[in-house]
Amino acid sequence: MLKVDLIIHNGHVLTMEGKGVGFIENGAIAIKGNIIEAVGESTEILTNYKAERMIDATNKLIMPGLIDAHIHTGISIFRGVAQDMSNWMQKGLWPFQKHLRPEESVVGSMVNIIEGVKAGTTTFCDYDGRMDLLVQNYKKIGARARLAELINEIPDDIGDLPVGELYPFDPSIGQEKLQRNLDLYEEHHNTENGRITVILGPHGPDMMSLELLKEIQAHAERLDTKLHMHVAQGDREVLQIEKRYGKRTIEFLEEHGLLNERLIAVHLTEATDEETEVVAKSGAKLIYCAGSIGIIDGMVPPVQKFLDAGGTACLGSDQAPGNNCNNMINEMKMAAILNKVKYKDPRVFNATQALRMATIEAAKVMGIDDQVGTLQAGKKADVILLDLSSPTFFPVLTTPIRNIVPNLVYSARGDEVETVIIDGNIVMENRVILTVDEKEEIRKAQAAAEQISIRAKDDILSADSDILQMVRDGLL
Amino acid sequence: MLKVDLIIHNGHVLTMEGKGVGFIENGAIAIKGNIIEAVGESTEILTNYKAERMIDATNKLIMPGLIDAHIHTGISIFRGVAQDMSNWMQKGLWPFQKHLRPEESVVGSMVNIIEGVKAGTTTFCDYDGRMDLLVQNYKKIGARARLAELINEIPDDIGDLPVGELYPFDPSIGQEKLQRNLDLYEEHHNTENGRITVILGPHGPDMMSLELLKEIQAHAERLDTKLHMHVAQGDREVLQIEKRYGKRTIEFLEEHGLLNERLIAVHLTEATDEETEVVAKSGAKLIYCAGSIGIIDGMVPPVQKFLDAGGTACLGSDQAPGNNCNNMINEMKMAAILNKVKYKDPRVFNATQALRMATIEAAKVMGIDDQVGTLQAGKKADVILLDLSSPTFFPVLTTPIRNIVPNLVYSARGDEVETVIIDGNIVMENRVILTVDEKEEIRKAQAAAEQISIRAKDDILSADSDILQMVRDGLL
Repeated sequence: MLKVDLIIHNGHVLTMEGKGVGFIENGAIAIKGNIIEAVGESTEILTNYKAERMIDATNKLIMPGLIDAHIHTGISIFRGVAQDMSNWMQKGLWPFQKHLRPEESVVGSMVNIIEGVKAGTTTFCDYDGRMDLLVQNYKKIGARARLAELINEIPDDIGDLPVGELYPFDPSIGQEKLQRNLDLYEEHHNTENGRITVILGPHGPDMMSLELLKEIQAHAERLDTKLHMHVAQGDREVLQIEKRYGKRTIEFLEEHGLLNERLIAVHLTEATDEETEVVAKSGAKLIYCAGSIGIIDGMVPPVQKFLDAGGTACLGSDQAPGNNCNNMINEMKMAAILNKVKYKDPRVFNATQALRMATIEAAKVMGIDDQVGTLQAGKKADVILLDLSSPTFFPVLTTPIRNIVPNLVYSARGDEVETVIIDGNIVMENRVILTVDEKEEIRKAQAAAEQISIRAKDDILSADSDILQMVRDGLL
Repeated sequence: MLKVDLIIHNGHVLTMEGKGVGFIENGAIAIKGNIIEAVGESTEILTNYKAERMIDATNKLIMPGLIDAHIHTGISIFRGVAQDMSNWMQKGLWPFQKHLRPEESVVGSMVNIIEGVKAGTTTFCDYDGRMDLLVQNYKKIGARARLAELINEIPDDIGDLPVGELYPFDPSIGQEKLQRNLDLYEEHHNTENGRITVILGPHGPDMMSLELLKEIQAHAERLDTKLHMHVAQGDREVLQIEKRYGKRTIEFLEEHGLLNERLIAVHLTEATDEETEVVAKSGAKLIYCAGSIGIIDGMVPPVQKFLDAGGTACLGSDQAPGNNCNNMINEMKMAAILNKVKYKDPRVFNATQALRMATIEAAKVMGIDDQVGTLQAGKKADVILLDLSSPTFFPVLTTPIRNIVPNLVYSARGDEVETVIIDGNIVMENRVILTVDEKEEIRKAQAAAEQISIRAKDDILSADSDILQMVRDGLL
C-alpha cells in the first residue's frame, strides 16, 4: 500500500477526462502533497493506497475545481450599482470607480474571491489594475490564480470623455502599466508552489497604441506566455479602432500578427461570424462571459460559432457590477440557455459542454491544462465536493439516464459545494472557509464601500443614471 | 403598547407596496397570529408594539415570501432526465412518467417544495394530477398553496401518439378529472386557516373538447374562481387546435368567450404579438416561465409585449425536469436577462419589475393580492429574511444608489434566505426546515426515483433520447 496524505472515497466522480465528463460510479481520489496521486474506483484506490486523513464522500460528487477564466475582482466593491441601464461604463461604473482607492479595491476583491470559492471556483484568472496588491488576497486565501495586470495608456479619467471621441494615448502611462505587469511576473510568477502564475494583460486594442501592443506581444514571446485581452468587446471599441485605423478590430489584429495561439480573446461581442471564424482558426482562444454580456449589452456573443469553427473556448464571470455574480454554476446555466435561445434549439450548448468550459476547456484556454482542469494522476489537487443529497440534485440517477451533470449545470446553485481543496490544501470545509475570516472580510469591505459612496456622491448625482432615477422615484 | 406575537426589527424592508419595492431603511414588522399587524420604521414599531418573540434582523432583508405561480411538483422526481434534447415530452419525460405511481409523485413533490421554501418561496401554485394527494405535502410543511387539478380528457398513454395526430378525447376521463378538481375544491378550498385554496386547472385547450372547456368555465363562474391553463404553449398545441378547429388558439378562445379575467394563461410561447395584445386586453393574466421555456424550447415568450399592452403578468418555475430548478431567484434573473437579450436592450425587464413579478404581481395574477404579495397591515404574514452579509449581497448601499434589489435579483442564489415565515408560522429558521425532516424526505424520494428508473428501463432505452445517447457515448 502506498502512503498518501488524503483519500476521498465512495463518491461519484467526474474526472472531466476524455471527450465527456469521465464519470466514475463510487470513485475515489488519492492526494499526496499538492498532487493527485490516483483516481479510480473506490475499491481500487482503497486497495492500493492508505492515508491518515480519509473523507467519506458517500452522497457527494467529487470533481475538479471550477475555473473562472475572466474576472475583475478589483471592482467587485461596486456590485449592484450599474445594471438595467444604458451607458453602463460611463454613467454606472465610472462615477464610483474614479473614487476607488487601491486598498478599497483589495478588500472588495477578497469578498469576491470568497464568493467564488464558496461556489466551487478554485482558479481565478483575475485581470485588473494593481494586481501587485490583489495578489496578496490569493496568497492569503489559498486559491489558484492566473493573473494579468491591465495595461493601457489612457488617463484614468477616460470615463469622462464623450462617446465617439478618440482616447488620448499617453506613452508614459503605458510604460508604467506594462512595467507593473512585468514586475508582477518577476515577483509573483510561479510563487506559492506554482499556485500563482502571471500572464500579460493588454486592456484592449482600442486602449493603447499599436506600438505598445506590439511591445507587449514581444514580451509575451520572450517570456513564452499569453495575452489576456478584451477583443471586439463592444461598439465603443469597434468605433475607436475604425476611427483610428480605418478598419475593424479583427482585421487590424490579424494584419499585425496579433491573432495567434498566445492570444486569449475575451468577449468577441461585436465580431461577425466571419471574424469569429478567423479568430478561431488563428489558434487564439476565447473566453465567453454569458451573464455579463447578457446584462450589460443584452447580447449573446458568437461563442457557439467559435466552437463550431474548431476553436477552444471557456467561461468567465467578469465583474460583479455587471453580471452581477461570480459563480461559475450560474455562468454555466446562463451560457447554455442563452445559446439555446439564440439558436432556438434546446440541443445547443448541452450541460456537458458547459461543464467542460468551466473545467478542462478553461484550463486549455488559459494554458494550464497540464496542471488543472481534470482529476488525473500527476495534476494539481484542486478538487471540490458537492452534496448530492441537496434538494437541487434530487434525484441522483445513474442508469439508464445519468442526470448528475444536467442537475449540476441547470439546478445547482453553488451552496451544494461543501469542501474545496486547492493545491492539496483544504480551503473550505462544510462551507466554512478555513484560511480567512469571511465575516470580518465582508465587514471591512462593507465599510470601504460606504466610504466610496460618500466620496463619489456628487459624481453619482451628476451622472444621473437610469438606476439613480429609479431610486429617486422610489422604484428601487 | 399593543401586544403581538412576533416583531422582526432592525432590518432593511421591502414592502413591495406602491409602484416600486417600498423600501424602508431600518424597518420592522409586527405579526399577530397569521396576520401582519404593522410595518414601518423600527423605532415606530418598537414604540407601538411589544411581543414575546423578537427577531433582530440587523444585516437582514425583510420581504414578502416569493410566489411561484406555476409549478408541477408532481413530476419533480424526473429532474435532469429531459433537457438538451429534442422531443422533450415524448422522448424525455414520457418514458419515465408512464411508470410514475401516485405515491412516488407525492414523495418527489415534497423535495420540490423543500427546494422552493429554502429559496424563499412561500406560495406554490401547483398544477398537477392527483392534487388530492399532493395537497397533504403543503399541509404538512406549512406552505401556502393555490392548487389546480390538471383536467384533460386524453388517455394517459398519449405520449406514445405520433406527433401530428389528433389526440383522442374520452369524455369519461374528462368527467373523472373535472370531478377530482371539484372534489379538491370541496374538500380543501380555504382549509388550514385559508392557507390552502383551490382553483380550476384545464390542462390546455388542445387537451379537451370545447364542451368540457365550457363546462369548466361554467364551474369557474359558479364558484367565482379562476382557470389556470396552458395557452399557446408550443407548436404541438397550435397544430392540434388548427387541425381540429381550423384556427389558432387565441382566436379559438376569444370566439368562445374564454378570454377574460378568470383566465390565467401560462406560457403564450407561440402567441404572435397581435395575439398577445388580444389576451392582455381581455383581462386574462399571464404566467411567464423563463427558465423552462428557455431550456425546453429555446424561446423567450412575449411577456414584455403582454406587459406593454397593459396586461398583468408574473413568473413561475414550471417543472423540475425542464428548467431544471424551482427557485424564484433563478427565475427572476433568467427572465430579466433573456428579455434584455431578446430586445438587445439592458434597460428592459429591470430588477424591480422582476421582483414584483415574483411577489405582488404574482399575487394579482393568482387573485390573492388581498392576502399576500406585499408586507402590509392586514395581509397574511408570509415573510422571508435574507442574510445581507452574504458575499452575494456585498456591498449593501442605500444612498445615493440603492443596490439591494439588483443584488437580490442578479446576484443572490437562494441560500441567503435564512428564515421563512408562512401564515405567521416559522417554517424555516437558520436554513433548517422545522416542519418536516428534509434529509428523510429526500431519502424516501430518492429510493422511489431509483425504482421508477428500473421499471421504466425498457421504455427509456426504446425512446433513445439525445441524452441517453450521450450517456452511452460517455458524455454524461
